[in-house]
Amino acid sequence: MGLVVQKYGGSSVADAEGIKRVAKRIVDAKKNGHQVVVVVSAMGDTTDELIDLAEQVSPIPAGREFDMLLTAGERISMALLAMAIKNLGHEAQSFTGSQAGVITDSVHNKARIIDVTPGRIRTALDEGNIAIVAGFQGVSQDKKDITTLGRGGSDTTAVALAAALDAEVCEIYTDVDGVFTADPRVVKKARKIDWIAFEDMLELAASGSKVLLHRCVEYARRYNIPIHVRSSFSGLRGTWVSNEPQGDQQVEHAIISGVAHDVSEAKVTVVGVPDKPGEAAAIFRTIANSEINIDMVVQNVSAATTALTDISFTLPKTDGAKAIDALEKAKSAIGFESLRYDDQIGKISLVGAGMKTNPGVTASFFEALSDAGVNIELISTSEIRISVVTRADDVNEAVRAVHTAFGLDSDSDEAVVYGGTGR
Amino acid sequence: MGLVVQKYGGSSVADAEGIKRVAKRIVDAKKNGHQVVVVVSAMGDTTDELIDLAEQVSPIPAGREFDMLLTAGERISMALLAMAIKNLGHEAQSFTGSQAGVITDSVHNKARIIDVTPGRIRTALDEGNIAIVAGFQGVSQDKKDITTLGRGGSDTTAVALAAALDAEVCEIYTDVDGVFTADPRVVKKARKIDWIAFEDMLELAASGSKVLLHRCVEYARRYNIPIHVRSSFSGLRGTWVSNEPQGDQQVEHAIISGVAHDVSEAKVTVVGVPDKPGEAAAIFRTIANSEINIDMVVQNVSAATTALTDISFTLPKTDGAKAIDALEKAKSAIGFESLRYDDQIGKISLVGAGMKTNPGVTASFFEALSDAGVNIELISTSEIRISVVTRADDVNEAVRAVHTAFGLDSDSDEAVVYGGTGR
Repeated sequence: MGLVVQKYGGSSVADAEGIKRVAKRIVDAKKNGHQVVVVVSAMGDTTDELIDLAEQVSPIPAGREFDMLLTAGERISMALLAMAIKNLGHEAQSFTGSQAGVITDSVHNKARIIDVTPGRIRTALDEGNIAIVAGFQGVSQDKKDITTLGRGGSDTTAVALAAALDAEVCEIYTDVDGVFTADPRVVKKARKIDWIAFEDMLELAASGSKVLLHRCVEYARRYNIPIHVRSSFSGLRGTWVSNEPQGDQQVEHAIISGVAHDVSEAKVTVVGVPDKPGEAAAIFRTIANSEINIDMVVQNVSAATTALTDISFTLPKTDGAKAIDALEKAKSAIGFESLRYDDQIGKISLVGAGMKTNPGVTASFFEALSDAGVNIELISTSEIRISVVTRADDVNEAVRAVHTAFGLDSDSDEAVVYGGTGR
Repeated sequence: MGLVVQKYGGSSVADAEGIKRVAKRIVDAKKNGHQVVVVVSAMGDTTDELIDLAEQVSPIPAGREFDMLLTAGERISMALLAMAIKNLGHEAQSFTGSQAGVITDSVHNKARIIDVTPGRIRTALDEGNIAIVAGFQGVSQDKKDITTLGRGGSDTTAVALAAALDAEVCEIYTDVDGVFTADPRVVKKARKIDWIAFEDMLELAASGSKVLLHRCVEYARRYNIPIHVRSSFSGLRGTWVSNEPQGDQQVEHAIISGVAHDVSEAKVTVVGVPDKPGEAAAIFRTIANSEINIDMVVQNVSAATTALTDISFTLPKTDGAKAIDALEKAKSAIGFESLRYDDQIGKISLVGAGMKTNPGVTASFFEALSDAGVNIELISTSEIRISVVTRADDVNEAVRAVHTAFGLDSDSDEAVVYGGTGR
């Protein structure tokens, strides 16, 4: 029996009862002969409450101090969890990100892990302890300041520790039973996926699936750490994410892993762009300089008569105003005619490594959308993904139609609890 | 203009409004040309809420993890305070006890400061920042674990930092206007003391005055750091505590500094103790082995006919059951007849260096009590203090009578807000 890293999200430790339930699960893993390292998020709404407080005190919470504030949440949950474990007769020690050796860069509020030096964790394990580590936080290499890792940061902490400690598996406990073939809130017949390749999981995460964040899966793939996503409530076997299926992990030789959707994006269309070299570059340099990440990009074929073309791209709605502002300021320099902004769009993505060798997938996808009466506005593809942009109102119907068309519906019509994964 | 250390208790930073008010006060000190180091407690009831959570999770919260939990409170308040200061246009950085170099022993929940290495604070100050430091916490020298200093710990943090940084003064901001000649909740005519010597302040603190804790005053005296106790609400000049009065600090050549009282103690009487050498030692070794601190001790004159005596002592009510239990177990070994336990007692103490040279003080004290119809049960004295134990019901009346008898009453009959000082 080797070392396991378990991560519990905020909803799993939302109150004293939740903490005691999680403590029992951790002790069970220890009793089964594992060395156990636990990464824990802040309790329930703690982080939101701290953000509220910060906004009451200052309209623009500052980076370094904001991180200092937010990390109090994990300090509370990890100490309580260690106490609950001791109360079950097992030894536990809690460690801040800094104490656990989570070394980051100095970008406050969204720091990146650059090294993990888990010497104190090793010692605690060697002495027979369960080690509890604060998720979402680290310490900056140069200034020794407390940093936070941004959204989904606790998952990344867990995978990074699993890599540094050479763990057998990184278990991500959440409030859903695993990764599903579609969002179960939208598709009642969505099925839990037994095993999925890193590659497909990365595309699902990038396409709007919220169970695991892209950065966390990327880290796991780089260090080849299998992830087991499962519910802290049910105790059922969840979804394994790895390079290759192991043992009895079912691989259904599915062409398609799942359908993801995303309604958090908006579309910007730059109208009347001179169709000559350097124009697209000028537009996207302007966007990049505003530190906005764009997603899909489509350039229309230019009409021969005008020598003008349109360029559309999608971006997070939260960056919409910033992008419009930046482009308006650069309007004369770039030389386009006008801008259009549309935040009533949705994106549906079909993901599956099988589509590499199944040329009919794209056609079937478009047929399913057409049969459901859904109009396609933009198309973008990678080797193992097809994404389309539609009206936001059409998204749920489109997801259900595609899910059925690709034979992903389960036989049962079970109700599934679904929620966020905390951070 | 030199360096000042300011300490703000939990009631001063109980909510966002309080934090903003305190931030303004800090910025004022900075504008006046001072280098400013601020020690802050947890917001209002935060600590009690964390203790509640801990008790829900585990009936016996463990030392190391309990400290990890409690220190989250200061992390929140200090980060918010730094944000509020930045919002006023000044630079501030917050530091945990560990980051501020507060090194302690390893006795969790009541650690003692053994060294202060404020290198990061010095750097922050040299760069023009206001430094905010978490009170009540440190890091253990041997294990690098987070520790807490116990009740009143933030005051001690402030004085220790003031000593290490060679501050001009340590300002303790609280919710009262200073140190009073008696508890203003009991004595309406209590007067604020303008200046008081360390020596007298130590006796008052030991006798039940709660404005400053004994340990903090002791530390200030050892390193000769003047303390200025004042209100964070009124901004009025408060009470200076130092070796010698400075400048315009009024010394009224008072014989008596003040009257303190304490109703948190109980009295244990060991009845029928053989009057021979070693008996008292056996009793108090038994108590000491239970880690109970006793206060007053009185042995009655033994009656010649029986060769038996009674020994009474006082101790915190919270340790009463433990003491009785320990003595009962040792009954046959020690050889006393019976135990009496009385938790309806109160202690009144008169403190003042002037009594060394004024032989009439003791007589006047007893006369005042007698005139008020208060019966004395135990008496204990030091060079600059007289304490008596009475019925708990008589304490308030006794304090008022003594306060008047020694001419301490103020002329005005002002209402004063009085409360705890946080931690």
